[in-house]
Amino acid sequence: MKHFRKELTVEAETRFALINITDQVEDAIRESNIVEGLCLVSPIHVTGSCFIGDNEKGSIADIAKWAEKMAPHEPLTLWRHNESGEENGDATLKRHLMGREVVIAVTGGKADFGTWEQVFYGEFDGTTPKNILVKIIGE
Amino acid sequence: MKHFRKELTVEAETRFALINITDQVEDAIRESNIVEGLCLVSPIHVTGSCFIGDNEKGSIADIAKWAEKMAPHEPLTLWRHNESGEENGDATLKRHLMGREVVIAVTGGKADFGTWEQVFYGEFDGTTPKNILVKIIGE
Amino acid sequence: MKHFRKELTVEAETRFALINITDQVEDAIRESNIVEGLCLVSPIHVTGSCFIGDNEKGSIADIAKWAEKMAPHEPLTLWRHNESGEENGDATLKRHLMGREVVIAVTGGKADFGTWEQVFYGEFDGTTPKNILVKIIGE
Repeated sequence: MKHFRKELTVEAETRFALINITDQVEDAIRESNIVEGLCLVSPIHVTGSCFIGDNEKGSIADIAKWAEKMAPHEPLTLWRHNESGEENGDATLKRHLMGREVVIAVTGGKADFGTWEQVFYGEFDGTTPKNILVKIIGE
Repeated sequence: MKHFRKELTVEAETRFALINITDQVEDAIRESNIVEGLCLVSPIHVTGSCFIGDNEKGSIADIAKWAEKMAPHEPLTLWRHNESGEENGDATLKRHLMGREVVIAVTGGKADFGTWEQVFYGEFDGTTPKNILVKIIGE
Repeated sequence: MKHFRKELTVEAETRFALINITDQVEDAIRESNIVEGLCLVSPIHVTGSCFIGDNEKGSIADIAKWAEKMAPHEPLTLWRHNESGEENGDATLKRHLMGREVVIAVTGGKADFGTWEQVFYGEFDGTTPKNILVKIIGE
């Protein structure tokens, strides 16, 4: 069995951002030299989300609007977490809404994706650099 | 290490459908001859969801009603994705709500499920044939 | 390849509870003697959720409030599942909202977590003992 670990770093320019990380994930899979296996992609923190969606402008805008409606950033008093002086109470909930991680099949040395599948990092508490873990096991 | 890949095909008769695919997943595990491992089940597209729930009529109806409330299909103008001429703007959001994939433990050659665990494919943009990836690694 | 399986048991004192199971998961990883791999943690039933979040009082209270708003327990007539005589129609929906499972990277014999990552079991239909599956594969 082979295993591979890598951290990707992303830095959003806004508090809320959906960033396409498909290329970095595919690079990591190539770098691992693993041909058949499973690849975990997950934030190394609790206010972001890795998910798979469609790289279509309207669809990305819809996720932003929807997540904001489901777990609004403001008023800050809405979330008890903000009583600690933070302003990211909504970020944890957006992360649960969108999920933490994705598990991707590795087949023939590549991410085993359908035509429309792209990996995104959802940042809900920018604008500092954040790390994303890529862990692959296989052969 | 052994690995196994299979595509299942489902075709919903309605735009929204929750289809029990437990038997097909269990067949794939048997076919793989993998006795101990992990099994990924995920749609090969972005408008459906694989999830584990209860095969109870009322519970299935509740998911349908709930998902529709959380991300309504209509009015179509609600979602910017539909400006591209599509009518499936809601489908991507329902997919994020219900999650993309399930990871199932394989133990003793079988899906390591509790009594009530059944695998469903949630179709949010029927009625064309859709493929679901089953990838298993183990020994 | 090595594999390891263990069931954890938790018993919530209230219908809704978010229980930190990080120590038990880390114990299971140690017990497995697996140094590099992937670890699946999931309830063996359909009314609970394993997820990764922040062990901060306010954040935990926010999840409770949010989940209740998104899928209320009452009125019981809200959910068709309750027509079967159950009172846990909301529990299945809260479980879908929060997700079923987490997949954790195992690196250097430990859960490969960031500073704030803690594993929780979300109980949405207490107060009976519930089992959680830990399955690890690797080497």
